[in-house]
Amino acid sequence: MTISSLVKLIDVGPRDGLQNEKSPVPAEVKIELVHRLQAAGLQEIEVTSYVSPKWVPQMADNHVVMSGIQRKAGVRYSVLTPNLKGFEAALLDQPDEIVVFGSASEAFSQKNINCSIAESIERFAPVVEAALAAGIAVRGAMSCTVGCPYEGEIAPERVAYLAGLLKGIGVQRVDVADTIGVGTPRKVQRAIEATLTHYAIDEVSGHFHDTYGQALANTLAALELGVWNFQSSVAGLGGCPYAKGATGNVATEDVVYLLHGMGIETGIDLDKLIDAGVFISDFLGRKPNSRAATALINKRAG
Amino acid sequence: MTISSLVKLIDVGPRDGLQNEKSPVPAEVKIELVHRLQAAGLQEIEVTSYVSPKWVPQMADNHVVMSGIQRKAGVRYSVLTPNLKGFEAALLDQPDEIVVFGSASEAFSQKNINCSIAESIERFAPVVEAALAAGIAVRGAMSCTVGCPYEGEIAPERVAYLAGLLKGIGVQRVDVADTIGVGTPRKVQRAIEATLTHYAIDEVSGHFHDTYGQALANTLAALELGVWNFQSSVAGLGGCPYAKGATGNVATEDVVYLLHGMGIETGIDLDKLIDAGVFISDFLGRKPNSRAATALINKRAG
Repeated sequence: MTISSLVKLIDVGPRDGLQNEKSPVPAEVKIELVHRLQAAGLQEIEVTSYVSPKWVPQMADNHVVMSGIQRKAGVRYSVLTPNLKGFEAALLDQPDEIVVFGSASEAFSQKNINCSIAESIERFAPVVEAALAAGIAVRGAMSCTVGCPYEGEIAPERVAYLAGLLKGIGVQRVDVADTIGVGTPRKVQRAIEATLTHYAIDEVSGHFHDTYGQALANTLAALELGVWNFQSSVAGLGGCPYAKGATGNVATEDVVYLLHGMGIETGIDLDKLIDAGVFISDFLGRKPNSRAATALINKRAG
Repeated sequence: MTISSLVKLIDVGPRDGLQNEKSPVPAEVKIELVHRLQAAGLQEIEVTSYVSPKWVPQMADNHVVMSGIQRKAGVRYSVLTPNLKGFEAALLDQPDEIVVFGSASEAFSQKNINCSIAESIERFAPVVEAALAAGIAVRGAMSCTVGCPYEGEIAPERVAYLAGLLKGIGVQRVDVADTIGVGTPRKVQRAIEATLTHYAIDEVSGHFHDTYGQALANTLAALELGVWNFQSSVAGLGGCPYAKGATGNVATEDVVYLLHGMGIETGIDLDKLIDAGVFISDFLGRKPNSRAATALINKRAG
């Protein structure tokens, strides 16, 4: 398998990255972050989530954010829609893609959304149907495809099972997510290969967490299988609440550094991306959680 | 090329890791660190350096440290010897291996040791000769094999040139070091391939810095070329003074997590290794600079 000479990154910072922030981030800051990401060349941005504000207060401003973005041609804006009510609200804001989700771990599904994997997919079926009928693309986020905080290692067969269920309800492409960051290259490759029993390589994106520092090695392993879509979060925003104090989402800056260093095109201007990360990190009162950004910022300072 | 099922790690923490620490680390702390590393299963440890205390005050206690270690059978203890005087002092402490060094970058060689690459190797020739005559192994540390803070990118031909000079004076094996951490997988592979024009794969070790977060991806890339010897530093100790504020040596804990996750044997007990990292980090008044250690320590704490 030849490594792709082009990679598309989905920045999940505004949604996955910010959703667990304790202090409210004003809508105008989120909008500015999206503007900066698209100005840096990001072609896909996961903007917000249409979930009950009781569950995720940080995303209560979804409509304000989505309607406040000055959209750029060629950029895909996606939003998370956990149910039909959320989808109907999202529809008014015209996302390019909605995201539904499922876990490869039964225990995680039960603890996270109080139902079995199969039940969760059944609940998403009408959402997917409605989205496709409205001409909106549908992505499925598959969590815990390598490991689960309750079950430990997840067998590739469980990933194939989940991918099959998502395919069955019409989900067009899927994320292979290592939600708790325990994956290493061969394990991640097995999860991707399991997904490939139901989806084509162009329909698979890698979503790796850097909790154990493995995300870029896993990215390389996925590239070597032909994966050319990846998710990451500017400034390493966000993470998994089950991995306390540890890092979560891999920083987009680190992924871009890897890809550009390998001669792979992303269309992203790393300097502008770093500035976007500094912008949101300054607002949050911390430093970007990205080694490449840290090194390059230090280099700028001389 | 098949990835090796076994990897040997050289922990450079006590020497490369500690040498730039501003506050003096007492000899007994260094000795305890070495004891903990060997108890954790490390089979190679870079202990100290026989360099003028005017240049590197932190290593002034080389004799006390080397003679204070209760050596464990099967462990190789190496020391840095920058000249004949240093070698003669080292000889009294019976290291298993001495380390000489050279840069693949002319500018770095000039700035770092005030002479050309060729001159630096000439100066090492009598040291290597004396070591081999005394039955002591000789390793050559090749710095800046991917990038240089003064010259930028380093061509693989420059790495081959340096490897050839080291081979010419009898150096038995070499480290391919990405001293400033700018390398990415293909560049690192090209530096290794250039080295392989003079050395066998068993004689090459990878030494990657995590300044830009690329060290584990580079490790995977090196593994894929058949490299099975790597250098790393417990708790991510040390770094390059030219990459201010950024991380330096890749943490041994992160490398071990990668390797074990891939089913590769190292003989290392990760829990004990993490404890060794916590021991020295506590002494230095900071947290281990390792994502795997951080995640596992958080997991321990529940």
